[in-house]
Amino acid sequence: MQSFQLGKIHPTANVSSSAELGKNVTIGAYSLIHDNVHLGDNSVVGPYCILGEPLSGYYNNSSYVNPRLEIGANSVIRSGTVLYAGSSLGDRFECGHQAIIREKTKAGIRCRISTFAYLQGECEIGDYVTIYGHVRVATGTKLGNYVWVNAYTHFTNDRTPPSQDLVGVTVDDFAIIASRVTILPGVHIGKDAFIGSMSLVRFDVPDETFVAGVPAKERGKVQDIISKKTNKPAYPWRYYFDRGMPWEGMGYDNWAKQAGITE
Amino acid sequence: MQSFQLGKIHPTANVSSSAELGKNVTIGAYSLIHDNVHLGDNSVVGPYCILGEPLSGYYNNSSYVNPRLEIGANSVIRSGTVLYAGSSLGDRFECGHQAIIREKTKAGIRCRISTFAYLQGECEIGDYVTIYGHVRVATGTKLGNYVWVNAYTHFTNDRTPPSQDLVGVTVDDFAIIASRVTILPGVHIGKDAFIGSMSLVRFDVPDETFVAGVPAKERGKVQDIISKKTNKPAYPWRYYFDRGMPWEGMGYDNWAKQAGITE
Amino acid sequence: MQSFQLGKIHPTANVSSSAELGKNVTIGAYSLIHDNVHLGDNSVVGPYCILGEPLSGYYNNSSYVNPRLEIGANSVIRSGTVLYAGSSLGDRFECGHQAIIREKTKAGIRCRISTFAYLQGECEIGDYVTIYGHVRVATGTKLGNYVWVNAYTHFTNDRTPPSQDLVGVTVDDFAIIASRVTILPGVHIGKDAFIGSMSLVRFDVPDETFVAGVPAKERGKVQDIISKKTNKPAYPWRYYFDRGMPWEGMGYDNWAKQAGITE
Repeated sequence: MQSFQLGKIHPTANVSSSAELGKNVTIGAYSLIHDNVHLGDNSVVGPYCILGEPLSGYYNNSSYVNPRLEIGANSVIRSGTVLYAGSSLGDRFECGHQAIIREKTKAGIRCRISTFAYLQGECEIGDYVTIYGHVRVATGTKLGNYVWVNAYTHFTNDRTPPSQDLVGVTVDDFAIIASRVTILPGVHIGKDAFIGSMSLVRFDVPDETFVAGVPAKERGKVQDIISKKTNKPAYPWRYYFDRGMPWEGMGYDNWAKQAGITE
Repeated sequence: MQSFQLGKIHPTANVSSSAELGKNVTIGAYSLIHDNVHLGDNSVVGPYCILGEPLSGYYNNSSYVNPRLEIGANSVIRSGTVLYAGSSLGDRFECGHQAIIREKTKAGIRCRISTFAYLQGECEIGDYVTIYGHVRVATGTKLGNYVWVNAYTHFTNDRTPPSQDLVGVTVDDFAIIASRVTILPGVHIGKDAFIGSMSLVRFDVPDETFVAGVPAKERGKVQDIISKKTNKPAYPWRYYFDRGMPWEGMGYDNWAKQAGITE
Repeated sequence: MQSFQLGKIHPTANVSSSAELGKNVTIGAYSLIHDNVHLGDNSVVGPYCILGEPLSGYYNNSSYVNPRLEIGANSVIRSGTVLYAGSSLGDRFECGHQAIIREKTKAGIRCRISTFAYLQGECEIGDYVTIYGHVRVATGTKLGNYVWVNAYTHFTNDRTPPSQDLVGVTVDDFAIIASRVTILPGVHIGKDAFIGSMSLVRFDVPDETFVAGVPAKERGKVQDIISKKTNKPAYPWRYYFDRGMPWEGMGYDNWAKQAGITE
């Protein structure tokens, strides 16, 4: 294992003296850690990563100071990823290869951003959110907790490109966006909603509603979607799926009761 | 030519002592070759590549052993590509830049995987298959021989995301998937079928059938698609196109007869 | 700031002795500058870039000479980008991260090509063109001046893949292609046209025409699209948007008069 050894900083990695690395961190070969990066304990950074990529002000302001990039403990950043300065990413943050996350991104705990995803920055992401690869998240997007965003999905923000009329998309907790969905600027996706693959979403989607199509139209309630495997409803998914979720092994209801969560 | 010189291992490349490199191989600058990688004779690896990327077990198992990555002879792996450990890729394998291919991928001879493609692993690919860029191939996908997959196409596998109800797509020999096609889990695409650009394929497609649309519907037989250039049928393509194919310069019928292939 | 210091060539960068670097250029860590690259004054190249990537002839021709790659002054090439030899990119050229631009690409002044875009080469791009990320531009594409191409858009060129019947798309000045548009081979997009998000464009689009849908159909004139912010027409956009354009701060009409441009 040449490219990274757990708990070691590879001799070819280039770490700023103003970066603060937690205990037992791993930094892969040829990675670059800029000024003012804070990396939590036990985190692993693969090869060819850039943490704390300087913002555009660096190019023309000789007194530029790199804003703080905060990465929580027990995170895994895979090879080729670029994380700009000025973001805050919670504990157990996980990245695929070659993800790009720009400045002023706030992500909660245990978020996962996959390979070739692009987050334009100035967006807010809750806890336990999964964003698959080749996804684009425009500035101003707000995702709740436990949201799933499948591959190639595009959160847009410009109503009449090119313009300064930018307004982000908002997605509530537990919503599922299937793959290759385009959501137009300012749209609000309700809690537990399901957006079918390849939809173009022009209007708000109410809670627990299933929409699909180009343009997307209402197809029913999410409870109407039946799993071919179990022959029972597949949604709201939190009652049927738990891998990696805080209710893993105990069921959502038990966990919610124990955690004092009431709907 | 600084980044790689044919037949040379660049001094900045990092090659495991347990990797087995064939004769006359080229390794580009800053590339990382992990334990148990086997690279065939005359193969070329560009800069910034990772061959034998360790699987997730590496992160939490101190007795982890990197499974074998087999890459055939006369292969070309372009810059920034990540090939996980545990795959087997046939002779004359060719990769674009920054392709990601995960573990337990089996590919036959002369396969080509282009720039920004992502193969999730545990998939089977026949001989002479071409996968263009920005494509995603989910776990469980099976592609036959001489299959063409155009840009952005997505082979999915989760019927009700997120779930454990995963079932891959199967594509038979000589099928053509045009660009930006989404194929839903478990769908079977028949031999010589043609899927039009931007289709959402929900149901099986019979042999020699042309489908298109969102959702995809049958539009006719592939023989009905006429080339504007020749004013003759364009499909089945093996009778009209031969570049890089084993029948190049001799025609499919002659080659098939010589090779003892009967339909 | 470890990965690049403005005006410096990083000690880990690898620059060919036959490359010609202008005054005050910056080259980031681990970047590779091949033979016959010409980089204009004050340009910045981030880490892990390859400028002058050799063409396929390099692999099998021992007398191969790398064709000239010309990059204009005041350009910014972000990390992980690969620019092939044999292209010409005008002043103030700007690239996102991990863009791939192949040979024989001609781009005018102040073009911007974003993260994860792929240009297949042998295409012509005018002045002040913006190409967002995850876009694909096939060989033979011709884009006029002041064209905007939004994310995931695909300019195709093969009428009956796989074939040798390749014909590119042509886009006239000021046209807007929204995100996730697929334009079929040989289509001509008129001046000031607007193509809605997720369209499949099969036929030519006249000047000042708004089309959308799968397949795309005429929806009206671009003047019919009203900005929700201003409650006035949003197109032709050059009268309502000027950031980064040559008419910034003075209005299009004043600039055009001063520049002697008549429509």
